[in-house]
Amino acid sequence: MSAKIRLYVDHLLGPGQSVELTREQAHYLFGVMRLAVGGHVALFNGKDGEWLAKVAEAGKKGGKLTCQTQSKPLHMPPDLWFLFAPIKKTRTDFIVEKAAEMGAARIMPVQTQFTNSERIRQDRLQAHAVEAAEQCGGTFVPEVADLQRLDRVLDDWPETRQMMFCDEAEVGSALRLAAQEKGQPWAILIGPEGGFSDRERARLSGLPYAHVVSLGPRILRADTAAVAALTMWQQALGDWL
Amino acid sequence: MSAKIRLYVDHLLGPGQSVELTREQAHYLFGVMRLAVGGHVALFNGKDGEWLAKVAEAGKKGGKLTCQTQSKPLHMPPDLWFLFAPIKKTRTDFIVEKAAEMGAARIMPVQTQFTNSERIRQDRLQAHAVEAAEQCGGTFVPEVADLQRLDRVLDDWPETRQMMFCDEAEVGSALRLAAQEKGQPWAILIGPEGGFSDRERARLSGLPYAHVVSLGPRILRADTAAVAALTMWQQALGDWL
Repeated sequence: MSAKIRLYVDHLLGPGQSVELTREQAHYLFGVMRLAVGGHVALFNGKDGEWLAKVAEAGKKGGKLTCQTQSKPLHMPPDLWFLFAPIKKTRTDFIVEKAAEMGAARIMPVQTQFTNSERIRQDRLQAHAVEAAEQCGGTFVPEVADLQRLDRVLDDWPETRQMMFCDEAEVGSALRLAAQEKGQPWAILIGPEGGFSDRERARLSGLPYAHVVSLGPRILRADTAAVAALTMWQQALGDWL
Repeated sequence: MSAKIRLYVDHLLGPGQSVELTREQAHYLFGVMRLAVGGHVALFNGKDGEWLAKVAEAGKKGGKLTCQTQSKPLHMPPDLWFLFAPIKKTRTDFIVEKAAEMGAARIMPVQTQFTNSERIRQDRLQAHAVEAAEQCGGTFVPEVADLQRLDRVLDDWPETRQMMFCDEAEVGSALRLAAQEKGQPWAILIGPEGGFSDRERARLSGLPYAHVVSLGPRILRADTAAVAALTMWQQALGDWL
């Protein structure tokens, strides 16, 4: 028995556990996906792995599912933070989606000197991360943090966490990531579309835990750079085989 | 003297060369970007590198630029074809944009057994490739081919061209691309959202020039897979340092 529909729920999951659906979830499962009583869904909550659940009650405003068996154990991503400077709305949504799909553990929008946006909709971005996890078969949902100023984030930086810092002004200095030790806490920082300011670049370059990496000879849009940087890191130090 | 605005033109470029603008180009430069006579633009045509040009005449329906000096030589991408199965419109546009940004030399939409779309707007996709080249500072524009059936493309496949074939069903068989010889003609093939059919997978796996590559433990959307695959290839065999 397997389920095609995957749903994130904010609820404990375990054998026989009953899961109440919200109005939106009921609308999605019964209205959009045409599921009925007796149908199956795969549930995950970011903590207990993936569970096969059966529809026990289906209504317009709600419903109830019963957990049956665990279909996947929890697969935690590596301890990787993903920091980026928000850009235009659609591209920001894409960046969050990509970071979740590519296995970032925590997504942190940061405000740089050249960042266009003053604020973000954290709840909206979190919803994109949930949707990405539903789509990509993940059992973990990265937390999307609120927008913080990059300089403040650096002030409080945990010294044991390495940082891969992608700077379009740096060409040819590709880090041999493969030479680094695996299993360490890391972060990836992607600059804004206008690049980092000279002051930011100077500060970042001087940090003992920062490693500048080049993303090739072409200038990449921020959302492309996000996937490229995550690919490089996951291949060298993450959970890609 | 440098120009912030980059424009692709279908015109010869060289010292003193005069370039007539189309109505759309004139609207963009003079209406949207507020450029005036004496202003500068960077031009490229995919063949002659990038040229600094000066606005000689500016009108609502057209205009004229005069080429001055070459600001960048032609940078050809590696001999890499990028094959993908078109999906929903917006994602297809993104895939073409990403492939152009990431340095594919030729973009080939292919129809697989599980491809949703029966046809594409080739002119529209080509325009996206041009725009991506304008944005990413490239001097080359990949050609977007018309939609072809995958089995026909394989029937006519040049035997000397290697193929990196990304299959979500294959986990853990990451090819050591780095062990391959550099400077060879290659192609990347990304499957449709629904994956390849069993028949397609069997045929692809049996091809002597096909190399199956895994894109990690999570299922990636097609546009994410495109960037991830291009990153892997460019790092191992392409023009990334």
